Amino acid sequence: MRRAQLLPALAAALMLTAAAPPAKPLTPREIVDQAPASAWRTIDPEDLMVIDLKNGGRVIVQLAPQFAPVHVANIRALARGGWWTGAAVYRVQDNYVAQWGNNETDKPIPKGVVAKPPAEYERPLAGLTINPLGSPDAYAPGAGFTLGWPVAYDSKGGTANLPHCYASVGVGRGLSPDTGMGGELYAAIGHAPRHLDRIIAVVGRVVEGIEAFSALPRGTEALGFYKERSSDVPIARVTLAADLPASERPSFQYMDTESPSFAAYVKGRANRQDDFFIRPAGGVDLCNAPVPVRRTPTK
Amino acid sequence: MRRAQLLPALAAALMLTAAAPPAKPLTPREIVDQAPASAWRTIDPEDLMVIDLKNGGRVIVQLAPQFAPVHVANIRALARGGWWTGAAVYRVQDNYVAQWGNNETDKPIPKGVVAKPPAEYERPLAGLTINPLGSPDAYAPGAGFTLGWPVAYDSKGGTANLPHCYASVGVGRGLSPDTGMGGELYAAIGHAPRHLDRIIAVVGRVVEGIEAFSALPRGTEALGFYKERSSDVPIARVTLAADLPASERPSFQYMDTESPSFAAYVKGRANRQDDFFIRPAGGVDLCNAPVPVRRTPTK
Repeated sequence: MRRAQLLPALAAALMLTAAAPPAKPLTPREIVDQAPASAWRTIDPEDLMVIDLKNGGRVIVQLAPQFAPVHVANIRALARGGWWTGAAVYRVQDNYVAQWGNNETDKPIPKGVVAKPPAEYERPLAGLTINPLGSPDAYAPGAGFTLGWPVAYDSKGGTANLPHCYASVGVGRGLSPDTGMGGELYAAIGHAPRHLDRIIAVVGRVVEGIEAFSALPRGTEALGFYKERSSDVPIARVTLAADLPASERPSFQYMDTESPSFAAYVKGRANRQDDFFIRPAGGVDLCNAPVPVRRTPTK
Repeated sequence: MRRAQLLPALAAALMLTAAAPPAKPLTPREIVDQAPASAWRTIDPEDLMVIDLKNGGRVIVQLAPQFAPVHVANIRALARGGWWTGAAVYRVQDNYVAQWGNNETDKPIPKGVVAKPPAEYERPLAGLTINPLGSPDAYAPGAGFTLGWPVAYDSKGGTANLPHCYASVGVGRGLSPDTGMGGELYAAIGHAPRHLDRIIAVVGRVVEGIEAFSALPRGTEALGFYKERSSDVPIARVTLAADLPASERPSFQYMDTESPSFAAYVKGRANRQDDFFIRPAGGVDLCNAPVPVRRTPTK
């Protein structure tokens, strides 16, 4: 029955491959699972922040110094200076963010932290090689991927910025010109809050353990703050992977966004062809094609 | 200081209004809070499904018979036939869906339920008045709002469909041509899974209590299924609001998507002008401007 419905072009291709059955397109997951080692880049352990909650949860964040170098340097200095020891997740707003730090305390800022960083909300487009998404974006003239990150950009203005996607990590701040020093951070736990793009410094993304944030009880006060301090979710410690003993150091890889595997992955996300997906979408949202990240395989 | 920076046009406007301070644009929330009664439509209690979890959580879903009439009729019959009594939430996949029903049981299907509903994945565009979003969409040629719902559409093909946004409720199904009879439902609890558009029947949206799903522990098995049946989150009962005694019946209103208030709300979501939003986005994603819904005010 199926054979009879084959289109002529496909039938011709089949004749070339003799008895081989028609190749079924790989699913996005299969593309990722079968990607060669050359498609992966290991994340610098200086760019991995390990957040251990007292409840046993662990959240690992990849930092993005290519986009917010001063804020990222601050975050490293804050981690090394023990800023988050005794801190807590104090705000969990449904379909929005989980936020952690030392809200409303007088904790002294560790040495080496720039108190008033510049507004690293966007960076020059120049110098970036962008792999375009191929679908329109509601928030920017251009959307694509670069250096292992999703990116929104404006060729005319010459700027590029990290978009707020699910699991993106940004820097809490007060009113402008304050940009936040990096001590109060949030992760997006709902639909991509892209309206925050270019008005807040995005400094990274959660690469493992987001459920330790996203499954937390929602705060009942305005903006999702917990009503009682006793509801706060205490943080045991925050460490850079680079500072952990080698035996305990987590290691992750992201897919090279210029690799053929990544191009196939994005194409697959836009045109799902598993048996379940009876009608490919023909497009994909920037935040609905997250850059694949994996634990570095042991040899 | 601020006065000195006023632009000429604004300064002129100020002179006209004499001593009045310049009007500050309303935030989207203020627009909703100040919308007149005429901007609201009360939801038919036949279209409200009340899901009571045994843990005390309550989730209220608005059904969309305008888009999936046979599936919605099934869901009403399933609720009235006690289908979900003793059922459970058995799948919670992070950044994707929470799913509930009677998975892998032989529970008999209540009377009046159509076992094999038609594929109500989209409906004719004809007959719908659409208020366009005004921003591009990655998944459909057109995006906007109609009848109190977000809608994706294709003028050329003459079809319209409910998009999968955060809190959208869809019908779990097996492989095509099965469309699911409505007994296994899911709610989106992460970034809008728009790749499911037009291949699954969307039947409604959670209008209150989504956190009773979204904050649940994530399942550790493939696709977020709970490993042990003992981890399932039991459902006490599912009732239509119409079948509750008047004194216990919840009542909700949605904002008329053709009202001036709604137009102002969408414009505000695309161009946030609070003090915090130093740079309006100039666009908005279809799923990032959820149609406002509120409890019907008591007089």
